[in-house]
Amino acid sequence: MVPSPPLGRGAVAVPELVERARDGDPRAIARLISLVEDASPLVREVSAALAPLTGHAHIVGITGPPGVGKSTTTSALVTELRRTGKRVGVLAVDPSSPFSGGALLGDRVRMQDHATDDGVYIRSMATRGHLGGLAWATPQALRVLDAGGCDVVVIETVGVGQSEVDIAGLADTTVILLAPGMGDGVQAAKAGILEIGDIYVVNKADRDGASQVTRDLRSMLSLGTREEGSWRQPIIKAVASRSEGIDEIVRQVDAHREWMDGSGELARRRTHRIRDEIETIAVTALREKFADVSGDARLDLLAAAVLAGETDPFAAADTLIDAV
Amino acid sequence: MVPSPPLGRGAVAVPELVERARDGDPRAIARLISLVEDASPLVREVSAALAPLTGHAHIVGITGPPGVGKSTTTSALVTELRRTGKRVGVLAVDPSSPFSGGALLGDRVRMQDHATDDGVYIRSMATRGHLGGLAWATPQALRVLDAGGCDVVVIETVGVGQSEVDIAGLADTTVILLAPGMGDGVQAAKAGILEIGDIYVVNKADRDGASQVTRDLRSMLSLGTREEGSWRQPIIKAVASRSEGIDEIVRQVDAHREWMDGSGELARRRTHRIRDEIETIAVTALREKFADVSGDARLDLLAAAVLAGETDPFAAADTLIDAV
Repeated sequence: MVPSPPLGRGAVAVPELVERARDGDPRAIARLISLVEDASPLVREVSAALAPLTGHAHIVGITGPPGVGKSTTTSALVTELRRTGKRVGVLAVDPSSPFSGGALLGDRVRMQDHATDDGVYIRSMATRGHLGGLAWATPQALRVLDAGGCDVVVIETVGVGQSEVDIAGLADTTVILLAPGMGDGVQAAKAGILEIGDIYVVNKADRDGASQVTRDLRSMLSLGTREEGSWRQPIIKAVASRSEGIDEIVRQVDAHREWMDGSGELARRRTHRIRDEIETIAVTALREKFADVSGDARLDLLAAAVLAGETDPFAAADTLIDAV
Repeated sequence: MVPSPPLGRGAVAVPELVERARDGDPRAIARLISLVEDASPLVREVSAALAPLTGHAHIVGITGPPGVGKSTTTSALVTELRRTGKRVGVLAVDPSSPFSGGALLGDRVRMQDHATDDGVYIRSMATRGHLGGLAWATPQALRVLDAGGCDVVVIETVGVGQSEVDIAGLADTTVILLAPGMGDGVQAAKAGILEIGDIYVVNKADRDGASQVTRDLRSMLSLGTREEGSWRQPIIKAVASRSEGIDEIVRQVDAHREWMDGSGELARRRTHRIRDEIETIAVTALREKFADVSGDARLDLLAAAVLAGETDPFAAADTLIDAV
């Protein structure tokens, strides 16, 4: 990557930015993601310009309960992917609960190893406060990294919350991390993870209880029905802090990609994801129309009528829709 | 409350249900909340019938980081409110992260004390999987409890995640719980809680570090600007497991209500909340219209075009909106 002169905050020519991003200029990539994150009016132009350049990157989601070692694993994974010559993007998404602050900074320290490697682009995104949060801005940021020539984009959640399943919805391949001694462990986790994981990693495998976690996981996975030719979710033991098992994760991510290519699953997943993306954008646009058409005054009048018990929220919503 | 004969799953007459709920029949209340939770087609009729009966209940939100003692405090608070003769509803909302299962059952055990008290109505709601989750179903459930004659409704989150601020958005009065020895403690929490708390409780105040948490909190709260006549957020020390400090929480909740009544803040907050409620219902209705008008086929075609790089998600969303 050849760094270009800094891009001022003032003039932005989207076609030029996209061209520079395509050539891997990290400043152009950063600027495009900022446009997306700030919901700039230019975002439509950005999206249109990126469209023909996307579809190459393999999006790998990394998720799991807090404390399981997601950032350490991501960092080790980046090192391993770089060894195989791949260009890597990392998007760390922070749903920013008011009670989970501080994690971001600590986690990013582990990423310092890659700070001087221009084959790696690392970006944190706070999704809280955005209209639609994760749903809206993150897929657009992934498009930027994809168009920017990343072979693999790792998307990772920072902190805790409801975002695990959302991450799975954005990824081609979802890696679920578990670890021994996590308190409620596998049992508590089982509600959701069996539906979303393509690859399971038992991290901190040098600790007591790792074999038990692996056994529990295996027996839970064996309960699912399996069609002929379907993907068999592997369980990998790893010690990410010592980079053990990371090569196997990369191998399985590649194997999963190969299986998806062959089975048509990749196109199915991506189509499903894009459907969600289109729908979310449409809903956001309509929400903005409410504000334009009705103005605050009308919504205030409707709310006052509901507050007075003269009408109910559903009838008020009908009135609002009729005005659009 | 006079229990009426059980209501069969079959025939539902909304006016009769609402009348029974108004008289405090717990079965009718349960049935109405289930209709809301299941997004029954009857929900509009329910909402219309409830409208003239709502506005009495004081909605108190209880929130704070995991492990701080939310359920214990809620349970002690219910006992104290019952001593003052108030009818109480409790709505425990579970955002159901796949990694936080199990909490619900354990927490509910503490509520067993109130199981035989017919002046208390306790309900858990899982919001995950619902369209709009918390945003849509929870306010309607609060309306049912309000119309059902509760003087106070305590709404509490179970588990962790992004729901703290959402809870604050649903409550008239928001109580933030903190405790010593929570690891990141006040420092980590400060990002969001200073904007949303009306009353702060330092729970587990018999433990080491409680005074420090109180001091930190006080100095953080003193940083905010305060207008003449504005509410001064109290900091209460409590040991909920021994019911210490709970009477003071009730006193401060009442004082906050009185201040809101006098200052016009109650109407302001409720109007704001209802605006959000109307808007969310309208957006949900429009999303359903997308499905009706465009059908899956059109959205699939649009997604395929985006996947092929022939168009971008924003242009596709425009096409979808034009079809409505």
